[in-house]
Amino acid sequence: MDLSNRKIKLTYLSAIRLIVLFYVIAVIFSVGLLSLPIFHNEGVELSFIDLVFTAVSAISVTGLTVVSTVDTFNAAGKIALTFVLQFGGIGIMTLGTFIWVMLRKRIGLRGRQLIQIDQNRTSLSGSVQLILKILKTILLIELVGTIILSAYFLNYFDTWQESLLQGYFGAVSATTNAGFDITGSSLELFANDYFVQFINMVLLTLGAIGFPVLFELQNYIRGDHREGNPRHSFSLFTKLTTITFFALIVVGMILILILERNGFMADKVWHEKIFYSLFQSVTTRNGGLATMDVSEFTPPTLILLCVLMFIGASPSSVGGGIRTTTFAIMLLAIYNFAKGRTGIKIFGRELDNEDIIRSFMVITTAAMLCITAIILLASIEPFPILAIAFEVTSAFGTTGLSMGVTPELSTAGKCIIIFLMFVGRIGIFSFLFLIRGKETKENYHYPKERVIIG
Amino acid sequence: MDLSNRKIKLTYLSAIRLIVLFYVIAVIFSVGLLSLPIFHNEGVELSFIDLVFTAVSAISVTGLTVVSTVDTFNAAGKIALTFVLQFGGIGIMTLGTFIWVMLRKRIGLRGRQLIQIDQNRTSLSGSVQLILKILKTILLIELVGTIILSAYFLNYFDTWQESLLQGYFGAVSATTNAGFDITGSSLELFANDYFVQFINMVLLTLGAIGFPVLFELQNYIRGDHREGNPRHSFSLFTKLTTITFFALIVVGMILILILERNGFMADKVWHEKIFYSLFQSVTTRNGGLATMDVSEFTPPTLILLCVLMFIGASPSSVGGGIRTTTFAIMLLAIYNFAKGRTGIKIFGRELDNEDIIRSFMVITTAAMLCITAIILLASIEPFPILAIAFEVTSAFGTTGLSMGVTPELSTAGKCIIIFLMFVGRIGIFSFLFLIRGKETKENYHYPKERVIIG
Ligand SMILES: [K+]
Ligand SMILES: [K+]
Repeated sequence: MDLSNRKIKLTYLSAIRLIVLFYVIAVIFSVGLLSLPIFHNEGVELSFIDLVFTAVSAISVTGLTVVSTVDTFNAAGKIALTFVLQFGGIGIMTLGTFIWVMLRKRIGLRGRQLIQIDQNRTSLSGSVQLILKILKTILLIELVGTIILSAYFLNYFDTWQESLLQGYFGAVSATTNAGFDITGSSLELFANDYFVQFINMVLLTLGAIGFPVLFELQNYIRGDHREGNPRHSFSLFTKLTTITFFALIVVGMILILILERNGFMADKVWHEKIFYSLFQSVTTRNGGLATMDVSEFTPPTLILLCVLMFIGASPSSVGGGIRTTTFAIMLLAIYNFAKGRTGIKIFGRELDNEDIIRSFMVITTAAMLCITAIILLASIEPFPILAIAFEVTSAFGTTGLSMGVTPELSTAGKCIIIFLMFVGRIGIFSFLFLIRGKETKENYHYPKERVIIG
Repeated sequence: MDLSNRKIKLTYLSAIRLIVLFYVIAVIFSVGLLSLPIFHNEGVELSFIDLVFTAVSAISVTGLTVVSTVDTFNAAGKIALTFVLQFGGIGIMTLGTFIWVMLRKRIGLRGRQLIQIDQNRTSLSGSVQLILKILKTILLIELVGTIILSAYFLNYFDTWQESLLQGYFGAVSATTNAGFDITGSSLELFANDYFVQFINMVLLTLGAIGFPVLFELQNYIRGDHREGNPRHSFSLFTKLTTITFFALIVVGMILILILERNGFMADKVWHEKIFYSLFQSVTTRNGGLATMDVSEFTPPTLILLCVLMFIGASPSSVGGGIRTTTFAIMLLAIYNFAKGRTGIKIFGRELDNEDIIRSFMVITTAAMLCITAIILLASIEPFPILAIAFEVTSAFGTTGLSMGVTPELSTAGKCIIIFLMFVGRIGIFSFLFLIRGKETKENYHYPKERVIIG
């Protein structure tokens, strides 16, 4: 029992090393790919740090850009970029889900059942099948997105080629939550086109809600309820992350409406108010696309967006940040304590103490990381604190929204943002695991002693 | 066993209610006292909200001021104010220590021994004796401080009466970490007088380091090592809080020096650099006195000061914030996890899992509270975000440093700051306990289910 536990932990470490290795190779490959002059518009010169920044931003599907995508890359370059986004978005998501599967003990009852659909096959072929399933699902979503957007974009663009390119790039960028744009001004062009916004929000959500959720949802829709696989039993993970995901969007939207009632929203009619606030709330989950220049928001709204970006998307998705589950567990823990309850009971399940401590650890480590980055950037860059805090949380959440300072960053500043995008993408928990030494099982104990807290 | 546990928890709740009751009565009493015209300079008119603000600031020994202390109050008023500071500083500290004693299970082995010196007497008289001991200790510190400062101030002020008033007020304000000043510009007058600064730092430290530490130190110095009370055994609490306290001061000082090397410190000679950075680092622990205008610091330093004020002083002291122990336990938990260790072992003792979760809970609740306050203030006040964040962390940490916006706050803004000073003073943990419902012992359990974190 003890040995098998150790084995799982080592495997987990190897899995994280695999992700990091994948990440590094993907960045090197992307730097090579995006540096090819055949992909550039005429006269474009990319510095090395800008190439690395663009590659990391694309692989981590953050979408922060130091150079204008539309001005830098030609049509072929834009298509090459979508491959990098696929590689980054789906690649790390696949590996993340793979780990989720490998570590049986970390998945819920329902998840375990889902994986065991093919329990007669070997574990390896089961995993390969899972990866193929993820690829198939995401590519299908992107295909449908491309068809809808391309057809609709015929209203906007002169040629079918341009419509197709815009539709394809837009669908990939939204589904992988990359947030890159080749319109030159994100989705501001479609600020009054609610159809485009709706399609984008659906794609963004499907990408950021986490693959395990899509997986369980697929089975639910199919009505897959053979023995041991009852139709109505979603895993605790799926319930928790989905509710948090949508609650964050609704709360974010309402708060934006309230905070901007005399600001950005003052001169808007009701449907504009709803779509501006809804889209900007959805995009902080992870998309980073925008139907307006976020700098137009007032400071309180910008701080709120920082918080929302810091929280980020669901685990095992294309997104970053501390993740929705982590945030939910923190709130549940505090709520339960304030209610005088011991242990966290939810949806007829009980959370493990270890998961609670880990959630708090992830949040506090992430907060310390972001504050350190803000202090460092503030001491080397000339921008206002709010623009810096926004850039930092956007990078850590791999959101990609910016108040416009990204291209002005110094080389040292770019390195800090690159590091944040990396950590945000692999996740704080994996990051801690990565720098972690070999687990030492200590067989001695000291007497416990209580101390005074807070 | 189960019943006795319940009894202790209820007692703890009652104790917190006692503190809050004390706090409210003290504020009402102070409002009444400070509103008396005989204590005001001629022509002074105090609005009700300013009276309440001043009273809460004094009772919570924060030291934020909406009106100038020196211009508002005459000599008698200044002396009346010192009584309010004593009431707030020592009063809540005494009650805090009282609770610490009452809840035997929350105190360390050593602490338990100290209390049991008088184990033959009844618990009540033991507690009364303890409170008297605290009062005696603090009043002695203040007496010595008054004598030294008053004598020395003869160099600064024309009359012995003025020197005595300044010395007495300064000693009380420093020891209770109130941070009020009757010089009109805090300690800026003494920016080059290292003796005054040294005495102030000693007094500030004695007030903010926590009474249990003073208690154990006193016994250590006396060489009190009868049976069961060995000389060299400080409690885990004392070791943890003292090391963190001084580590924060040293780290804060070094970081101020580095961050301001081209800013405030650029034109200073070496001893000025040391004393400016040391004093400003010490004062963020809780004093709130300053030898310079903090607005002169660059933004990165100001963010650092926000973090230091947020952490605050030691538990069972005159200070606020999340407390040093809470911060230390968070760092230890993350460090131990990153090292692959299970459980936190330190100084030959092991921390309780419950204390770890509580520490994280205090930190995240405090962070959410401060961020909410910053967003609220930013939406109603016209000040820069950094000035608002500084004001909020200063109020929550009951530090009392300000970038100068306090007197300009709107009434709603003042109410928010008043609330933060209150919560910061009683502590997040007590605050959560206060709003907590009756503890429900649930005798059923659900199956545990793990979820994906971060
Ligand atoms: K993004
Ligand atoms: K203070």
